[in-house]
Amino acid sequence: MGINLAVLGATGLVGREIIKLLEERNFPVDNLSAYASARSQGERIAFKNKQITVEELDTKRIADCEIYLSSLPGSVSKVILPEIAREDRVIIDNSSAFRMDEDVPLIVPEINGDLLEDYRGIVANPNCSTIQMVVVLHPLSEKFGLKRVTVTTMQSVSGSGQRALEALLKESREFLDEGRRSARHYAHPIAFNLLPAIDYFHDNNYSNEEMKMVRETRKILSRPDLEINPTCVRVPVKFGHAESCQVELGREFKLQAVRETLEDIPGIAVLDDPHKDVYPLAIETEKDERTLVGRLRKDLDRSRVLNFYCAANNIRKGAALNAVQIAEKCLQVRKK
Amino acid sequence: MGINLAVLGATGLVGREIIKLLEERNFPVDNLSAYASARSQGERIAFKNKQITVEELDTKRIADCEIYLSSLPGSVSKVILPEIAREDRVIIDNSSAFRMDEDVPLIVPEINGDLLEDYRGIVANPNCSTIQMVVVLHPLSEKFGLKRVTVTTMQSVSGSGQRALEALLKESREFLDEGRRSARHYAHPIAFNLLPAIDYFHDNNYSNEEMKMVRETRKILSRPDLEINPTCVRVPVKFGHAESCQVELGREFKLQAVRETLEDIPGIAVLDDPHKDVYPLAIETEKDERTLVGRLRKDLDRSRVLNFYCAANNIRKGAALNAVQIAEKCLQVRKK
Repeated sequence: MGINLAVLGATGLVGREIIKLLEERNFPVDNLSAYASARSQGERIAFKNKQITVEELDTKRIADCEIYLSSLPGSVSKVILPEIAREDRVIIDNSSAFRMDEDVPLIVPEINGDLLEDYRGIVANPNCSTIQMVVVLHPLSEKFGLKRVTVTTMQSVSGSGQRALEALLKESREFLDEGRRSARHYAHPIAFNLLPAIDYFHDNNYSNEEMKMVRETRKILSRPDLEINPTCVRVPVKFGHAESCQVELGREFKLQAVRETLEDIPGIAVLDDPHKDVYPLAIETEKDERTLVGRLRKDLDRSRVLNFYCAANNIRKGAALNAVQIAEKCLQVRKK
Repeated sequence: MGINLAVLGATGLVGREIIKLLEERNFPVDNLSAYASARSQGERIAFKNKQITVEELDTKRIADCEIYLSSLPGSVSKVILPEIAREDRVIIDNSSAFRMDEDVPLIVPEINGDLLEDYRGIVANPNCSTIQMVVVLHPLSEKFGLKRVTVTTMQSVSGSGQRALEALLKESREFLDEGRRSARHYAHPIAFNLLPAIDYFHDNNYSNEEMKMVRETRKILSRPDLEINPTCVRVPVKFGHAESCQVELGREFKLQAVRETLEDIPGIAVLDDPHKDVYPLAIETEKDERTLVGRLRKDLDRSRVLNFYCAANNIRKGAALNAVQIAEKCLQVRKK
C-alpha cells in the first residue's frame, strides 16, 4: 500500500519536521529510513509509535526507496544526491544546490506541481522566503497580471538552523541578565538587533538570499521577465518569516477582488482587519501552517500597485511542509 | 550669555535625552526648568553638576523662557502649547499635534532650518521614522531628483516610550524562563515577534504612522507631489529604527556618485561594505547619533531605482537630538 521512503539529514530542524509531517499527514510509508552525518548516528526519532534509528549516510549502503526527502547542506547535496539518483527514484532536495539547474523542476505544488507528472530524479524545494511569496503572487498574477515586486523580508533565525536558534536565546538571556552583547552565530549580535544580511554577497551588492528570491520566483512562475527587488533582513524571531510586499499588477483592481482571490486559495489565510488588531503575526505561524496574508491596501498614488504583508512558518511551508507536499504530489500524479 | 529654557515632559524617554543633549552639546542655558505631570513632580534630574527639580506643569505658573522643548503627549500638547505661545517664545513640539498645520514649520534643521529665521511660535519636530528617511532623501533629491519612495520600517519599541521598553524586556524574560507569551504593552506580544501595525488605522487601511511618513516627508521636502509607499512594522529591538528603502530618482545615476553625495553629509555615516559584514545595525545607533546608511545598490531592472537601508537612534536624531538641533538653529539664525 505505501512506499519506501528515506529522510536525509533527519536530525536537523527541517529533517525532524519532515518526519513529524509524514506522520501528521498520514503519508503512505511502508518503511521509513532516516540518515544523517556520523555525529548523529544512533539517535532515535519517533515515527508512528515506533522508534527509527538514525543511520550514518553512506550512498553505497543506502536503502532502496521510491522517494528521498533531503535536507542536507547544499555542498553535501551537490555530491551525494547525484549518486543516489536513479531512473525509478524521486529525490526532493531542500538545499539550493540544484534549484537553478535547467533540468531540475523547482516546485511549489499548488503552483507548478504538474511538472512532476512522470518525472523521476532530483526535484528542488525552493528557498523559504521565496515559497511564501510565490504562494501569494501566483493567484494575483493569474487574476490581475504581475509586472513588478518590491519586497523586504524579516526572517527568523530558525532559517539558519538549530544553532542559530540556540544563539538567539542565549544572546537574549545574556543581554537581559548582564547587559552584555555577543555574536554567537552571525557576524553581529542578533538578540534585540536587525541584520540586513543573509547569506554571502554577490558583486552587485545583493545578498545570495536576495538573488535566490529573484531567480527562484522567476523560475517557479515561468516569468524570466518579472521584475523583483528584494531586501532580506534577519530579525530576532524564532520561527516565521514575514514579508512586506509591494506589487505592480497588470491592471487596475478592486481591493475586494484581491481579497476574494486570496481567500479562495486553501494554503492562504487572509488576516486583514487591522482596525481590530488582525494582521499576520510571525508567532502565529508556529500554530498555523498556511501563509498568512494581510495589510492589503492600494498604493496611494498608483492604481495598479498593491501592498500586502505575509508571514509563514519557514520550517513548515518554507521547507518541510512544501517538501512533503511535493512527495504527495508525486504519488498523486503517478497514480493517474 | 545663555537663555532661559524649559523642558516639558522632562521625565519621559525623550525629555531625559533632551536634557542630556543640552549638557553634552554645551547648549547656552542660563536657567533650565523641567516640567512634567503631577505624577513626576519632585523628581530630580542631573544637569551640569546640578540637580533640577521637576515641577508640575501649570501654564499659569510656567517660567518665562525663550525656548520651550516639549515632548508631551499629542493630546496634551494640543491644549497646553497654544497657552504658552507668545510673540517672543519658540516652542519646539515633539508630538504630532501641530505638524501638519499650515502655519507651523516642520523642521529637520539641515534640510529646511532656514524657515526658522525670525520665526516665533510653535515649531514641530517630525516623526522619528520620517526624520532619518528625509535626512537621506534630501541630498539624493537635490543631486539626482526624486520621484517615488517605497519604504518598510522596522521600528524599535522605545518609540512607544518607557513602558513599552519595559514590556519588551519583561516579555522576553518570561518567554525565556517559562515559554509563556503575554502582551504587556501592544495588542499582541512583541518579544520574538513582529507587529505590522503602529498607531491607529485610517480608512484607507494605512496606519497613522504610515500616513505620518507620507504627509511629513512631503511637507519637509516641499514636495506635495512626491509618491511615498510606506509599511511600518514594530520589531523586538530596544533602540534604533531601521528602514529598507527603494527610491526612484529623477535620472540615471552611478552608485559611486550616490555614495559620495551621502558621505558629504555630516549627519550621515555610510556603512556599506556587506562583503566585510559592514552595514547599518540597529544596536549601533545607541552609540552613533548619525543616520547610518548602507546596502546601497541599483535595482536589477530599472536604471533610475536605488535601494538603501538606513538606521538611526529614534530617541536621538528621531526625537531629542533633532529638537535640540532645532533650538540651536533658532539661536544661530537669531544672531544674524
